[in-house]
Amino acid sequence: MPSYTAPVRDMQFLLHDVLKVTETDIPGYDDLEADFTAPVLEEAGKLASDVLAPLNPVGDHEGCTLENGVVRTPKGFSEAFDKLREGGWTALDCDPEYGGQGMPYLLGTAVGEIFVSANMAFNMYQGLTHGAYSAIHAHGTDAQKQTYLPKMVTCEWTGTMNLTEPHCGTDLGLMRSKAEPQDDGSYRITGQKIFISAGEHDMADNIIHLVLARITGAPAGIKGISLFIVPKFMVNEDGSLGDRNAVTCGNLEEKMGIHGNATCVMNYDGATGYLLGTADKGMRAMFTMMNEARLGVGLQGYAQAEAAYQNAVAYAKDRLQGRDVTGAKNPDGPADPIIVHPDIRRSLMDQKSFVEGARALTFWGAHLIDRAHRAGDAEADGLISLLTPVIKGFQTDKGFDMTVQAQQVFGGHGYIEEWGMSQFARDARIAMIYEGANGVQALDLVGRKLALDGGKHVMAFFDLVKTFIAENKDEERLAKDFLDPLKAASKDLQAAATYFMQTAAKNPNHALAGSTDFLHLFGHVCLGLMWARMGKAALEGLDAGASETDFLNAKLATGRYYMARQLPATGMHLARIQSGADTVMALEADAF
Amino acid sequence: MPSYTAPVRDMQFLLHDVLKVTETDIPGYDDLEADFTAPVLEEAGKLASDVLAPLNPVGDHEGCTLENGVVRTPKGFSEAFDKLREGGWTALDCDPEYGGQGMPYLLGTAVGEIFVSANMAFNMYQGLTHGAYSAIHAHGTDAQKQTYLPKMVTCEWTGTMNLTEPHCGTDLGLMRSKAEPQDDGSYRITGQKIFISAGEHDMADNIIHLVLARITGAPAGIKGISLFIVPKFMVNEDGSLGDRNAVTCGNLEEKMGIHGNATCVMNYDGATGYLLGTADKGMRAMFTMMNEARLGVGLQGYAQAEAAYQNAVAYAKDRLQGRDVTGAKNPDGPADPIIVHPDIRRSLMDQKSFVEGARALTFWGAHLIDRAHRAGDAEADGLISLLTPVIKGFQTDKGFDMTVQAQQVFGGHGYIEEWGMSQFARDARIAMIYEGANGVQALDLVGRKLALDGGKHVMAFFDLVKTFIAENKDEERLAKDFLDPLKAASKDLQAAATYFMQTAAKNPNHALAGSTDFLHLFGHVCLGLMWARMGKAALEGLDAGASETDFLNAKLATGRYYMARQLPATGMHLARIQSGADTVMALEADAF
Repeated sequence: MPSYTAPVRDMQFLLHDVLKVTETDIPGYDDLEADFTAPVLEEAGKLASDVLAPLNPVGDHEGCTLENGVVRTPKGFSEAFDKLREGGWTALDCDPEYGGQGMPYLLGTAVGEIFVSANMAFNMYQGLTHGAYSAIHAHGTDAQKQTYLPKMVTCEWTGTMNLTEPHCGTDLGLMRSKAEPQDDGSYRITGQKIFISAGEHDMADNIIHLVLARITGAPAGIKGISLFIVPKFMVNEDGSLGDRNAVTCGNLEEKMGIHGNATCVMNYDGATGYLLGTADKGMRAMFTMMNEARLGVGLQGYAQAEAAYQNAVAYAKDRLQGRDVTGAKNPDGPADPIIVHPDIRRSLMDQKSFVEGARALTFWGAHLIDRAHRAGDAEADGLISLLTPVIKGFQTDKGFDMTVQAQQVFGGHGYIEEWGMSQFARDARIAMIYEGANGVQALDLVGRKLALDGGKHVMAFFDLVKTFIAENKDEERLAKDFLDPLKAASKDLQAAATYFMQTAAKNPNHALAGSTDFLHLFGHVCLGLMWARMGKAALEGLDAGASETDFLNAKLATGRYYMARQLPATGMHLARIQSGADTVMALEADAF
Repeated sequence: MPSYTAPVRDMQFLLHDVLKVTETDIPGYDDLEADFTAPVLEEAGKLASDVLAPLNPVGDHEGCTLENGVVRTPKGFSEAFDKLREGGWTALDCDPEYGGQGMPYLLGTAVGEIFVSANMAFNMYQGLTHGAYSAIHAHGTDAQKQTYLPKMVTCEWTGTMNLTEPHCGTDLGLMRSKAEPQDDGSYRITGQKIFISAGEHDMADNIIHLVLARITGAPAGIKGISLFIVPKFMVNEDGSLGDRNAVTCGNLEEKMGIHGNATCVMNYDGATGYLLGTADKGMRAMFTMMNEARLGVGLQGYAQAEAAYQNAVAYAKDRLQGRDVTGAKNPDGPADPIIVHPDIRRSLMDQKSFVEGARALTFWGAHLIDRAHRAGDAEADGLISLLTPVIKGFQTDKGFDMTVQAQQVFGGHGYIEEWGMSQFARDARIAMIYEGANGVQALDLVGRKLALDGGKHVMAFFDLVKTFIAENKDEERLAKDFLDPLKAASKDLQAAATYFMQTAAKNPNHALAGSTDFLHLFGHVCLGLMWARMGKAALEGLDAGASETDFLNAKLATGRYYMARQLPATGMHLARIQSGADTVMALEADAF
């Protein structure tokens, strides 16, 4: 059975040596002293290792069941959910006004990674509740907030997001679900929603569904869609639960992975709903929390890779097979551990350098969100808005690849379910799809975010890279190994952006045909920047005489690997992009 | 439910316009007239579409079951196996002396692709029998051949390969299974084998296991291993079946995919076995059929991608979502089919250009095997020996990626099992692992095949590329779009090989750390060469006034896509390779 240990030291390095959280002027960040964050992460790690990780294969194997409208989660999930609640973990970065602990989103992100690595399917019940909490927090009336938020902060009630219908996923303008206004100000919601994660289950007293639907007479398309709160059980004035609402789970999907999470077909048969935010502005309300939700999915990508990587390392150290060509490393044993083999080492370094780079990018992203929300920094808001599709798309594509590489380290044992490596790959696969499939992320990046506010945010990103390189150019230990490759990669990214600008007027397909390559190119530059930053922080630590020289030297070595072995991908992506749309669009649809 | 149609036109193009089979001097190839191969492929396609493909999700869902030592295959498998036998499909390229039809291996390969695309797990029962047939055919005594081959040609008896043990996969020198010589010349075989595909099932009267084991007193390591024939039921003098042998299925593995195939733990408890070939030379006997077996797995890689691609195309034409940015293509409908979107198109072109290129490479490989075996051509034998790890490793890595891309076209519908796209990815995943994990293929290529016979075979490959470019340099329709990229890619491959030669003496890890990149670089050059050849053949067809101009023009357009969008990967692989082993091996094992 796979095991998991929270990478607390790596997280502390990011928080305190790279992001230097307590030195920033973001409200609430002064709480984040190293001797405060360490025990928080350690405690989360304990829950993850002892309770959540052992339930991960159980959830995969048992899955959820639907009988007479009741969804049962796998054995042990409910007890584990109680522990999550009792530990106050669900309230960590929620508003103290509604019972939250008011911690920065960054800390919530670090803790979230730990829980997601240990058991992604399980953590979704909480994660979706947090998303619905954020939407109500941002758009609800005072009464709505008082009614729902305290119970959602504790996860006594969980939440869901209802967007997709059988005939519409990406193109939500085609939505058919209806909302008929009632005399009392409520709405009658009718329609069918699919792929609703945690839509129905046995771990909470109530489920608060956020549902997109079209109010009678609303404009066609995306501009006529509103967002509604639809509780599973009606909530009485005094907060007690009333009648069952007319919303039911019609079916559970059989999926490739995340079996422990109930993916429901939800039927709304004249259910009572309450408008959340402004009528016809439901998409906007939904999208205000999209950055967070997509960052959270980008996190799932590398968090699954982290869990898979940990187990691949353990196997590579344990499995004896063949000999080191440069001389036996385990001469008294029948063979050497496979970690001696350069191609196994390459695979582990791919995984390690990706995971640590992606964690840095995600933490930086969470830090930007805090800066935007807590310090009202519009530039941080613009930057995270630009980076969100990169974090979501790049990290889930690569994260999945890395789970596959980790599985490969096990040979045939990776393919059988007994070792748990298949589950990491099967679970990670969904992150490439939900919260907007990665092709849609690439479209968002190239078709919208690049040009947003006159291209100001991408220019800010380039400036950031340029400034970092300029400020550190005299540091010889960074120059050749970190700064030169970063500069070259950033140049490729700029050349790609320039190509898009130059061709856009002539034919927008040139940019769109290169969108996925651009997203990956951007991702590599981001991770290159993160590694340069981490390299700098490691050198500072070494120069200051930090005791953990092995840890800091390993950071430098892992960074050098990423720069030498991963960044060269930018040239390939640029070449593909610059080949334009002609070969992509040459065939008629009939020729496929 | 997914559907499948055999790509007969594409296959005919390869056989008759690219490979021009009847113009070669290989014995048996004069049978392969276009009006002979077409109905063979059509008939195989009919069986595949009507019988095997509909059973594919059934096999995935039901899997195999073990009860009291008896393994039951999924409902319908046994009847389908009868149809395979009745149609004579199992005997296609087998020796007429034992009831085979004596067709070239190339034709068997084409038919094999069709069956594998339709139902990979099902086809393995036949495929493994063919492998065991080949081993007995090459190394058996006359009596052994007479006893086993006729029944294996018809698949009345099926075959297996028993290599892996719990503690040894790649490193077979660690093997523990024992063979004790008996007075009657037979051996008592004792040991446990794992991951034995089709090790036990209910579709054949007998199962002929080929088992690697160590004869009492044999040298340690790989040089003391022998190969044995161990029948499930003893075979009497008159060919009738006698007692049950002491070999049993101890367990079935629960796997990520190929659920329809029984992956068995096999226990040999003093089972009676017969030496196949020479004592202590079992590895050599096993490896004489390795080229074929690995080519077959390389075929599985693209065959699954083909099946997934066909369904992705159908979905992309059918699913209405969003609008073409250059103007609505389905203005009367609620939205355009998603095939209008450039990023979907890019994905489909990635899949199409890979599958058609890989098919060309595989058919060429099969052609080389025929040339080696039927015409005794040592150079062809050397070349296919070099290309085998490339075909196996590159095509299964990429083939899996393409099934994932095809699944991605479906968005959330790709993740649920209902649409069958998950199965293609889960089934394709095993091909990266078995018959030697792809890292082992890369090691075989770089550590062994490159330098084989003084590097003669890789030089022959480079000459082949050079000659093709030289012979066609005046064809303007090929020069810029096909020959220039091929030349550049081939130069990258040569630079990588040169780097390995220059660094090998200093430190063999430089080559080994670049082995997987080298395998992929080589794969791209191979597919580049294939597309150049197909481009040339398409132009010849157009110039000769062939009626199917759409088909031939699509070949040219797809080839141009591959050259423009896939070949640029070679530069990235070269850069990674030339960065050497230092960053790969920098960390101590403890630092992971």
